Amino acid sequence: MKIGVVIGNVWSTRKDEGLVGMKLLIISLQDRGESSECNRIVAVDLIGAGIGEKVLITEGSSARNMSGLENSPIDAIVVGIIDEEEKDV
Amino acid sequence: MKIGVVIGNVWSTRKDEGLVGMKLLIISLQDRGESSECNRIVAVDLIGAGIGEKVLITEGSSARNMSGLENSPIDAIVVGIIDEEEKDV
Amino acid sequence: MKIGVVIGNVWSTRKDEGLVGMKLLIISLQDRGESSECNRIVAVDLIGAGIGEKVLITEGSSARNMSGLENSPIDAIVVGIIDEEEKDV
Amino acid sequence: MKIGVVIGNVWSTRKDEGLVGMKLLIISLQDRGESSECNRIVAVDLIGAGIGEKVLITEGSSARNMSGLENSPIDAIVVGIIDEEEKDV
Amino acid sequence: MKIGVVIGNVWSTRKDEGLVGMKLLIISLQDRGESSECNRIVAVDLIGAGIGEKVLITEGSSARNMSGLENSPIDAIVVGIIDEEEKDV
Repeated sequence: MKIGVVIGNVWSTRKDEGLVGMKLLIISLQDRGESSECNRIVAVDLIGAGIGEKVLITEGSSARNMSGLENSPIDAIVVGIIDEEEKDV
Repeated sequence: MKIGVVIGNVWSTRKDEGLVGMKLLIISLQDRGESSECNRIVAVDLIGAGIGEKVLITEGSSARNMSGLENSPIDAIVVGIIDEEEKDV
Repeated sequence: MKIGVVIGNVWSTRKDEGLVGMKLLIISLQDRGESSECNRIVAVDLIGAGIGEKVLITEGSSARNMSGLENSPIDAIVVGIIDEEEKDV
Repeated sequence: MKIGVVIGNVWSTRKDEGLVGMKLLIISLQDRGESSECNRIVAVDLIGAGIGEKVLITEGSSARNMSGLENSPIDAIVVGIIDEEEKDV
Repeated sequence: MKIGVVIGNVWSTRKDEGLVGMKLLIISLQDRGESSECNRIVAVDLIGAGIGEKVLITEGSSARNMSGLENSPIDAIVVGIIDEEEKDV
């Protein structure tokens, strides 16, 4: 999983029916570089994350391992909202 | 998913039969660097995106999660055309 | 697989039920650059790795190939704690 | 999918039996940097692409979605030979 | 697939049972940059590759497409030892 911050929303009217009703968040991932447009993905959110919250993102086929998403064409999802991080570095 | 812009088309005569009849779009992804040839992928489009439109791209095995594509050898697809983005950054 | 070092923990209260009870470690992967926030992922740990230990990480759908994880939305897991590395370079 | 150019061949005698009889091409992908050894992958070719031809490459599990490849340990395949590209950029 | 060179071994005592008995090789991949610790992965080897040999690596879920590995949590495997490469560049 990767740690990211919710920085916005995306709206789409013409889309695959597997995406109907899903909230799409723009996430700035922390594992990549800092340049403005270079570290952003869009993830489906079923948990209720808000702008500015730090979240845990699952990518790839594992993103469909939440109930109701098995047949959706999605490759990134919010799996958790991070309360606390502790780093010993 | 990633946000990209449709910048062109690709045509192929000799191809796998799983690609016959599919529209192939060249997409410039926004998550990568800005250098000219370095951020481009080719995605199947069943939605009807046009040149210059901002789209949502799903990659990997999830790209086959749209009806009729289960057995196609594709790893990127247009899942939505973006109407609006809102960023709080 | 990739070699990484355990550098911290992540806690999440609001999360997908497939993650309940799982220990989430922040891993600094050795295959990427050295910049501070740029080479980190979060992996599930069922083996008992501690801070500072060198571990082996499996990513993608293969991360769900451990018993009890088949239906969890995870894309990275600790599959081993490294005792020794021998490099002839 | 990604656009690449066929730049060579690879031969292997000791290999997994799932690769026996398959033509293996070295492909220079156009989505990455230009440095000499840094943008190359090896893809299985069932279509008959030749050196210098521009091809369409599918990666990941979708590379096994061509008949006869379901059980082969391959992660990249030539799915088409590109006749024409049209870019409006 | 990617071309890499075997540069070492990794040993792990505390590991997932799906990895028991498997030889783990450190591979320096040729598709990435040249910096010392930045282009290394660990791959399972069932073929018998030795230090210094040039090998073909399959990543992702396809790495489990060799008999006996279907249920192992691995994401990279040696699928062939390269005898010869021919590049027309």
